[in-house]
Amino acid sequence: MEIQIAVAKTNRYATAESGDTLEVVERPNGGVSVVLADGQTSGRAAKIISSIVVRQVIGLLAEGVRDGAAARAASDHLFTERSGRISATLNILSADLQTGTLVITRNNPTPIFIARVEKIECLTGESTPIGTSRNIRPAITEIPLELGLTVVLYTDGVWNAGDQYGSHLDVCTLLEATLEEQEPPAQEIADTLLAQAIRLDHGRPNDDMSVVVLRVIPNEEEGIRRMGVRLPVPVTSPFNQ
Amino acid sequence: MEIQIAVAKTNRYATAESGDTLEVVERPNGGVSVVLADGQTSGRAAKIISSIVVRQVIGLLAEGVRDGAAARAASDHLFTERSGRISATLNILSADLQTGTLVITRNNPTPIFIARVEKIECLTGESTPIGTSRNIRPAITEIPLELGLTVVLYTDGVWNAGDQYGSHLDVCTLLEATLEEQEPPAQEIADTLLAQAIRLDHGRPNDDMSVVVLRVIPNEEEGIRRMGVRLPVPVTSPFNQ
Repeated sequence: MEIQIAVAKTNRYATAESGDTLEVVERPNGGVSVVLADGQTSGRAAKIISSIVVRQVIGLLAEGVRDGAAARAASDHLFTERSGRISATLNILSADLQTGTLVITRNNPTPIFIARVEKIECLTGESTPIGTSRNIRPAITEIPLELGLTVVLYTDGVWNAGDQYGSHLDVCTLLEATLEEQEPPAQEIADTLLAQAIRLDHGRPNDDMSVVVLRVIPNEEEGIRRMGVRLPVPVTSPFNQ
Repeated sequence: MEIQIAVAKTNRYATAESGDTLEVVERPNGGVSVVLADGQTSGRAAKIISSIVVRQVIGLLAEGVRDGAAARAASDHLFTERSGRISATLNILSADLQTGTLVITRNNPTPIFIARVEKIECLTGESTPIGTSRNIRPAITEIPLELGLTVVLYTDGVWNAGDQYGSHLDVCTLLEATLEEQEPPAQEIADTLLAQAIRLDHGRPNDDMSVVVLRVIPNEEEGIRRMGVRLPVPVTSPFNQ
């Protein structure tokens, strides 16, 4: 079997910089982790906060620190540096090949969707952003890595898409419809969700938006890892011809 | 335009762990960097070395340190920790949107291929692996990020593929043939090169193999970043069904 992770990400309309930061890092005992943080507000200030958080978490994970401890460290660090005045949401999604589980660490009230054969669950339990007080704990969910598993998470820009126009993204229905196809690639699901969120904001995203999709799919081919990045160069950039 | 990065990676035959470590990190002033290290020997010991090197380099790049300074820091750190007894090769490939350039930092004698319209160049200048002495400097090449640019780099497992059977990977010809197609995706080029290298080793890679391909291609769509990871779960894993 194979673990597929896909990310699709865009900025708030007319904002050069996204306040969402996302990095993927290899786990030292096998597997991979996706770390996604969204700093309070948007633009440069938010970007600095979310970068600090993600940098710290990936550094700790790469050293073998457990996900929950890494999230708590990032919260304490942010609280100490900014005296509790700045918060950030944080999600860590880890495919841990040592335990054979998917570990979902949430400091983010935005729900996470878990689809298994014929069933879509939604993690919506209470969850506090990091950095606002001492002793903030993440909500941690651990489930077996099994064929057919699909997990979707995103930042609040996607969750709140369409709010100003009185509409709302129905992730559950959209996900169900997409999964009815024969094994859609994770990237296709992420692209569909992001495109729909942008559409609900009438083509002008009201906030930074990031979508992460993880799937466990069958794979006969052995032992080849792949990674891909696609980075658009802003049309305003002097290097864009 | 859009920057596409693709990676394909496999382990030495019958070795659970690859000595090559590769991570992709966002540059704080815009753009993305790929950091690839190959620790001396293979398996667990090599993995530890290459992880330390890559972790340090991505940490420094994420803080805004320039590529050359990050490579020198990693070399001095490795030299100090292992008293010069262990070496590692290091490549940093950065698409820097602040300067509009591609920065290639090499501490690796394995050549790098640069294809521009109708012309394939090969960077083969002398280049020393890191960690073996004080004052090791990387070879740095900076070229404009322009449409049609394709860069290919890999670890010595690919370079030496077929050696034991008296054959050799002709990257230049293979790359020319692939690029003759209409805009092949970076992933297709990386997959083709890795598959050919594995074939030259008769299906049993004699060393860890990693291939990185960067392309600058036209793109009309605006402002959506994408990232994908595909991680095979080893068939020996108890979780693989």
